[in-house]
Amino acid sequence: MNQVRIAELAWPTYAAKVKNGAAVLLPIGALEQHGPHMSMNPDVLLPTAISERVAAQVGALVAPAIAYGYKSQQKSGGGNHMPGTTSLDGLTVTSIIRDVLKELARHGVRKVVLVNGHYENSAFITEGVDLALRELRWDSIRDFRCIILSYWDFIDQKTIDQIYQGDFPGWAVEHGGVLETSLMLHLHADLVDMSQVRDHPPAAFPPYDFFPIRPEWTPESGCLSSASRASAEHGKLILAVCVQGITDALRTAFD
Amino acid sequence: MNQVRIAELAWPTYAAKVKNGAAVLLPIGALEQHGPHMSMNPDVLLPTAISERVAAQVGALVAPAIAYGYKSQQKSGGGNHMPGTTSLDGLTVTSIIRDVLKELARHGVRKVVLVNGHYENSAFITEGVDLALRELRWDSIRDFRCIILSYWDFIDQKTIDQIYQGDFPGWAVEHGGVLETSLMLHLHADLVDMSQVRDHPPAAFPPYDFFPIRPEWTPESGCLSSASRASAEHGKLILAVCVQGITDALRTAFD
Amino acid sequence: MNQVRIAELAWPTYAAKVKNGAAVLLPIGALEQHGPHMSMNPDVLLPTAISERVAAQVGALVAPAIAYGYKSQQKSGGGNHMPGTTSLDGLTVTSIIRDVLKELARHGVRKVVLVNGHYENSAFITEGVDLALRELRWDSIRDFRCIILSYWDFIDQKTIDQIYQGDFPGWAVEHGGVLETSLMLHLHADLVDMSQVRDHPPAAFPPYDFFPIRPEWTPESGCLSSASRASAEHGKLILAVCVQGITDALRTAFD
Amino acid sequence: MNQVRIAELAWPTYAAKVKNGAAVLLPIGALEQHGPHMSMNPDVLLPTAISERVAAQVGALVAPAIAYGYKSQQKSGGGNHMPGTTSLDGLTVTSIIRDVLKELARHGVRKVVLVNGHYENSAFITEGVDLALRELRWDSIRDFRCIILSYWDFIDQKTIDQIYQGDFPGWAVEHGGVLETSLMLHLHADLVDMSQVRDHPPAAFPPYDFFPIRPEWTPESGCLSSASRASAEHGKLILAVCVQGITDALRTAFD
Amino acid sequence: MNQVRIAELAWPTYAAKVKNGAAVLLPIGALEQHGPHMSMNPDVLLPTAISERVAAQVGALVAPAIAYGYKSQQKSGGGNHMPGTTSLDGLTVTSIIRDVLKELARHGVRKVVLVNGHYENSAFITEGVDLALRELRWDSIRDFRCIILSYWDFIDQKTIDQIYQGDFPGWAVEHGGVLETSLMLHLHADLVDMSQVRDHPPAAFPPYDFFPIRPEWTPESGCLSSASRASAEHGKLILAVCVQGITDALRTAFD
Amino acid sequence: MNQVRIAELAWPTYAAKVKNGAAVLLPIGALEQHGPHMSMNPDVLLPTAISERVAAQVGALVAPAIAYGYKSQQKSGGGNHMPGTTSLDGLTVTSIIRDVLKELARHGVRKVVLVNGHYENSAFITEGVDLALRELRWDSIRDFRCIILSYWDFIDQKTIDQIYQGDFPGWAVEHGGVLETSLMLHLHADLVDMSQVRDHPPAAFPPYDFFPIRPEWTPESGCLSSASRASAEHGKLILAVCVQGITDALRTAFD
Repeated sequence: MNQVRIAELAWPTYAAKVKNGAAVLLPIGALEQHGPHMSMNPDVLLPTAISERVAAQVGALVAPAIAYGYKSQQKSGGGNHMPGTTSLDGLTVTSIIRDVLKELARHGVRKVVLVNGHYENSAFITEGVDLALRELRWDSIRDFRCIILSYWDFIDQKTIDQIYQGDFPGWAVEHGGVLETSLMLHLHADLVDMSQVRDHPPAAFPPYDFFPIRPEWTPESGCLSSASRASAEHGKLILAVCVQGITDALRTAFD
Repeated sequence: MNQVRIAELAWPTYAAKVKNGAAVLLPIGALEQHGPHMSMNPDVLLPTAISERVAAQVGALVAPAIAYGYKSQQKSGGGNHMPGTTSLDGLTVTSIIRDVLKELARHGVRKVVLVNGHYENSAFITEGVDLALRELRWDSIRDFRCIILSYWDFIDQKTIDQIYQGDFPGWAVEHGGVLETSLMLHLHADLVDMSQVRDHPPAAFPPYDFFPIRPEWTPESGCLSSASRASAEHGKLILAVCVQGITDALRTAFD
Repeated sequence: MNQVRIAELAWPTYAAKVKNGAAVLLPIGALEQHGPHMSMNPDVLLPTAISERVAAQVGALVAPAIAYGYKSQQKSGGGNHMPGTTSLDGLTVTSIIRDVLKELARHGVRKVVLVNGHYENSAFITEGVDLALRELRWDSIRDFRCIILSYWDFIDQKTIDQIYQGDFPGWAVEHGGVLETSLMLHLHADLVDMSQVRDHPPAAFPPYDFFPIRPEWTPESGCLSSASRASAEHGKLILAVCVQGITDALRTAFD
Repeated sequence: MNQVRIAELAWPTYAAKVKNGAAVLLPIGALEQHGPHMSMNPDVLLPTAISERVAAQVGALVAPAIAYGYKSQQKSGGGNHMPGTTSLDGLTVTSIIRDVLKELARHGVRKVVLVNGHYENSAFITEGVDLALRELRWDSIRDFRCIILSYWDFIDQKTIDQIYQGDFPGWAVEHGGVLETSLMLHLHADLVDMSQVRDHPPAAFPPYDFFPIRPEWTPESGCLSSASRASAEHGKLILAVCVQGITDALRTAFD
Repeated sequence: MNQVRIAELAWPTYAAKVKNGAAVLLPIGALEQHGPHMSMNPDVLLPTAISERVAAQVGALVAPAIAYGYKSQQKSGGGNHMPGTTSLDGLTVTSIIRDVLKELARHGVRKVVLVNGHYENSAFITEGVDLALRELRWDSIRDFRCIILSYWDFIDQKTIDQIYQGDFPGWAVEHGGVLETSLMLHLHADLVDMSQVRDHPPAAFPPYDFFPIRPEWTPESGCLSSASRASAEHGKLILAVCVQGITDALRTAFD
Repeated sequence: MNQVRIAELAWPTYAAKVKNGAAVLLPIGALEQHGPHMSMNPDVLLPTAISERVAAQVGALVAPAIAYGYKSQQKSGGGNHMPGTTSLDGLTVTSIIRDVLKELARHGVRKVVLVNGHYENSAFITEGVDLALRELRWDSIRDFRCIILSYWDFIDQKTIDQIYQGDFPGWAVEHGGVLETSLMLHLHADLVDMSQVRDHPPAAFPPYDFFPIRPEWTPESGCLSSASRASAEHGKLILAVCVQGITDALRTAFD
C-alpha cells in the first residue's frame, strides 16, 4: 500500500489526510503513440512518477491518473490519425477535470495540482478548472485553489544544455524524443526498445496547422525528433530536476 | 511489456494485432470507498485483472481502465456522500465511453468488450455505446460490435453456494463485502487489511431511493455487508469462475 | 376536474395546495411496444394510475406523466429496434427530470416522488434528481427531497407467489408479461386483446448485452415472457398491493 | 382503443399503418397557468383534440403529446414566475423533439406534423426539427418531411370577426382569453369555471421584454385578456375551423 | 475613438463608465442574404447604428455586435438554404448571449439592452438571458437587469402609414424589403445597389412551416417583399423614429 | 463595398466567387483589455486587417470576425479578472467555429483559413475545426480543408531582431506590448494613446498557472510588457511581414 496513492488507501485514512490539509496531485495523460520504440503510455506514467515523488516530499496525495487525453496534434504529438492514439473530445476532457475537482473539494481537499503529461490537454484542463471553480463558488467554496503545470516546464536551461549539448530542437518536437524516452528508460526500461528507434532529423512544420491532417508531414515513426541520444542516465537527471523543481514550487505556492 | 496491455505496446505492434482482428477489452471502474479494510480501487483493479486474464486466453487486448465512474448510489455503493468516493456526472461517463469506442473503431478494432466493475456505471456505459454506434454508422462503419458485461454476472449459483453457504445477501449489498474483498485478497493482498473489517448484518433499505441521501442508512463502515468471511481462497475461485465464464462467452459471442 | 391532477387544477388551487405542503408524484413512463396484445403506453398508464390512487390517499398531487423514456434494452424491454418503441437519449431524459423538479421547487413544492414505470429510465432519473438538487442547492434551496421508486418493487413475495404459483420468471423478463398485462386488464381493458397473446417460454439471454442488438434474441412478439396467465383479477391485486405499499411508505418517508 | 392514438395501438397495428404511409401528428404543449378559471393543460389538450380530429380525417396517427414546454413569456403567457407554470430549458425542448422525430423516422414514418399549442415552444421546435433532419441526413434518410404549425394560425379573419365582434386584442394577449377558454368549454367543460373569470382589459406591454420579469405587468389573474365572452359555442366554431383548415392543408402539403 | 463603443475604449475608461452606472447595449445580428441589391450585414449594421445613437443620447455604451445569428427561416428570412446566409445552432446563440452577459455583470454592469436585428434570434436570446440570470443568481448577483428589443417594434403606425402608403405587407415579409433597404440607403449607401432590386409582390406562405425547406417558396431574389420603394429619406425617418422610441423607453425602463 | 468582405457583398456576388473556388479567411479575436493606452479590440482588428490584405493578394474572401474569444489567461493576456475583458466558455468558442465552418461548406467553400488574433483561442478553434470536419464527413463532404494560424507566427527572427534590438521578451508576454501596439499605431492610431503607456519590465511568472488567479501577478497596467518602444513604423513592418508570409503560405498551402 503506497501511502501517497489515494486509490490504495482505505477511506478513513484518506479522510484523515485530507482533514490534515493534504494537497492532491492529479496526473493527466493520454493514450498516444510515441514511436515504434516505446509504449503508448508515457504521458500517463511520467506525470504519475513525478507526482508520486513530489507527493512523498511534500506530504501530498496522488489521485488516479487520467489515462485518456485530448486529440494529438500533428505539430506536437504526430497527429490524431496515428494508430493507437486514443483521444477524447475537448468537452470530455474538460468535464472529467471539472467533475474530479468538484469531488475532491467535496471531500475537503483545498489544494490540487494538475500535473499534465500531454501537451494537447492544456487548454481543456484550464477550462475544466475554471468550470469547477465556478461551480464551487456557487456552493460557497471559495478557498479551493489549483495549480496547473506541465512537468517539462520545470526543466531548466542548464539541464537542457547538459542533455542536448546545444542541439535542443524545442519542446514542440520533443514528442517521442530524447526527453520522454530517457525518462521512460530510467523509470520503465521494459517499455522501451532502443533498437527500434528511428533516427531522423526533427520534424519541420510550416507556421500553421492543416486539417484534415497531412499524414506525410509526420515522420513515419510517429516521433517528431529522434530518441537515439536518449539514455536512462538522462532520464534520471530530468526526473530529479522535475521533482525538485515542482517540490520547491509547491512548498510555497499555496501560501 | 505485457503483450495484452495496449498501453504497453508500441504502436506498430498494436496496429498489427488490430489488423489481425484482435478484440479489445475495456475495464471500467470507479474511485469509490470500499470500507475501512480495503483500498478504494477494487472497481478498477478487479475488471482489469479479469480482462487481462481473459485477453490472454482469447488473444485479445486490454485498453487502459477508466479509473473514475458514475456516482455511487446508497443501495449499491454506500452513497456519493462518502469521503474518497470520486465520481463523474452521467454525461461525462457516457462521453468517455463514446469517445474511446470511436477511436478504437478508427484504429480498425471491430470487437470491444466493456468490462464493468462498478454497478452504477451500467446505464451510462450503455448510452455511451449507443452514441458511439450511432456516430460510427454516420461514418459508414456498421460492423463494429460491443459487449457490455459486469463480471459478477458470470458467477454461477454453484459458486455462490460454495462461498456464501446459503447466506448470500444478494449482489445489491455486496459492496465491500465477501465478493470484492476475496478477489482483492487473492489479487492485491497488500490493499486489504482484514483487521479493519467491520462485522455487521447486510444493510437493509426500503424499496425506494431517497435524495438527498440519508447518511444514517449506510453502515458506518461504508460497506453494505460484512467482509468477515472473505478469503483469498474464495477470491481465487471467483476469479477463476469469472475468467472462465467470460472467456467461454467471448469465444463465440462475436460469431 | 380530478383534484389530484395538477394539470386539471387552476393555478390558485394548485398554489394553495402547495402552500399546504402537498407532495407531488411524477409518473415517468415510455412509449414502448408491449407485445401484439397490448397498447404501447402501459409504462405511462400504470405509474399514473398508481400515482393517482396513492395521491388520493396521502393528500398529494400528480404531475403530468413523462410520456417518452430512455431506450428500451433488449433484456428488459425487447430492444430499441422494435417498431413503435420511441425513446429519448439519456441526456434528454435527465434534462426533463432536472427541469421539472426545479420548477416544482420554484412553486414551493418540497417533496417529490418520481414513480417510474419503465425500467430503463432508472439511472437517468437518478441523474436528473442529482442535477436538480445540485442547482437547487446553488439557489439555497436545501430542504427539497425526492423519492425515486419503481412500482413493481412494492410487490411482495406473497403476491408474487399467489400470482405466479411458483413460476415467477423474474422482473427482468416481465416485459409485456403477466404483471403489466394484468394491471392493464384491470385498469384499461380496452387496450388489451388477450386473443393476441403469444405463448412462449420466458426469453433467455446470455449474461451480457450485445450491440448492435441481435434482433433474433427477442421473441417475435416483443414480449419477454408470456402474458397468457394474466387476468384482471391479478391486476386488481397487484394494483392494491402497490398502492398500499407506496402509500404506507410515503406516510413516513419524508419525516 | 382509439385507432388514431399511437400509444393505444399494439405495435403490429402501428407498424402496418406506418408501412401504409400514415403521417404522424405530434401535439406539443405545456403545463402553464391559464388563469383562475381554467386548468393548466389547455396547451396540451387543445392541440391533442385538434390532432385527433384531423388525423381521423386524413388517415394519420397521433403521437403522445409533449406535456411540458418552453418557459412562459410575460407578453404571451403571463411569465414564468407564476405558480403552476412548469417549464423546460430550451435545449430540453429541442432535444425531445429531435429524439422523437428520429425514432419516428426509424419506424419508417416519413411525414410528421408538429401541432403546437404553446406559443413559446415555436423556435425550439424548429431547432429540434432542424437537428433531427441533420442527423437523419447523416443516416441517409432524405425523404423525411415535417410540418410545424400552431393551430391558431388556421383561424381566419371571418371567424375572428364573428367571435370578437371587432374587439380582437391580437393573438399576443389571447393567453387564457376567449380563444382558449371557448375551446376548453367546448371540449373539456369540467376544466373551466366561468365564475372564476376575472374581467379586465387586455394587458398592455411596452415594445420590449424585461428580465427579471416585472410581475406587476401581468394581470393578477395570470390571463392577458378576459375570457368573459368565451362560450362553448365559440369553441365549437373555432375547433371546426382549425380542424378543417389543418385537414385541408394536410391533404396536399406533403405532395 | 468613439466614446460609446466599448471595444474602442481602454479598460480604465470603460471601468470608470461602468462604475458610474452606464448601461450597455449589445447589438445582435446575423450574416444573412438580403437580396441581390444589398450586402449581407444589415442585421448587424442596423442595430449597431441604432444602438450607438441611443447610447450617445442616454450615456450608455455599446458592446461589439454579435455578427452571426440563428438560422434564417423561410417565412421571415428566406430560408437557411440560401448562399451566404451563415447561421449558428440555437444553443450556440444562447451560449454566446449567456456568456457575454455574465462577463458584463462581472465588470459591474447592471443594465443591459439586447438590441436584436435578426428576427430569428429572438427566442435564443431570451433563453440566453434566462440562463445568464440563473447563473448570476447563483453568484448572488440579483440586481442585474436586461431588456430585449427588436428595433422595428419601435416603429409606430404613423411612420408605417407614411412610408408604405397603406401598402404595408407586415413585418413578417419585410426581409430585404423597404424597411431594411431604406435604413441601409441612409446609413450605408455604398452597400446597396438599387439597380439590382427585383420587383415582385410580397411572398405568400401557407400558415405553417415546411422542412426540409421548399426553395421554390422563396422568391428568387431571396427577399420576401420588394425594396423598390425604399429610399434614404425613408431610412432617415425610420432611424429617427427607432432611436427616439428606444431612447425614450430607456430613460425610464430601468427605474 | 469592399470586395473581399463577405458581409459587404450581395449574395449573388458571394455565390459566384465561391463557385470560382475562393478561399475564405475567418479572423478570430476577443474583447480583451490591452492596457491603459489602447482599445480593447486589437485581437479583432489586427487579424482582420491582415486577413483583408492577404485576401486581396490571393483572391480570397474575409468573413466577419469573431469578436469575442476564450478566457484571457494570466500569463498570456493578463487574466480574466480584468475589467473589460469579455470572454466565452471554451465550448461556446468551439461551437461558433464549428457552426460557421459547416455553413461555409454548405455554400460550397472548400478552403478556409482561420486567422487567430488571441492566443487563448487556439485549442478551442482546433476543436471547432475537428468537430466541423467530423460532421462534414457525415455529410459526405471530404474535400473541405482548413488552415489555422496565429499571425505572429509569421514574424521571422530578422524582424524580431530589427524591432526588439535583442530585447525580445518572448511572445508569451507580448500582451499589450510592442507588437500589438505598433500594429495598432500603424492601422488604428486613434485607438492608441502612447501617453498612457506604463513602462515596466516584462511580467515574470512561475512555471505554472494558479487558480483562482492571483491578481497581484499581473502588472497594474494589464500589459505583460511595456509598449513604450512601439511605433507606427514598427507596425508597418510587422504588418508587411505577416501579410507577405501568410500570402506566400496560402499560395501553395491548399495545393
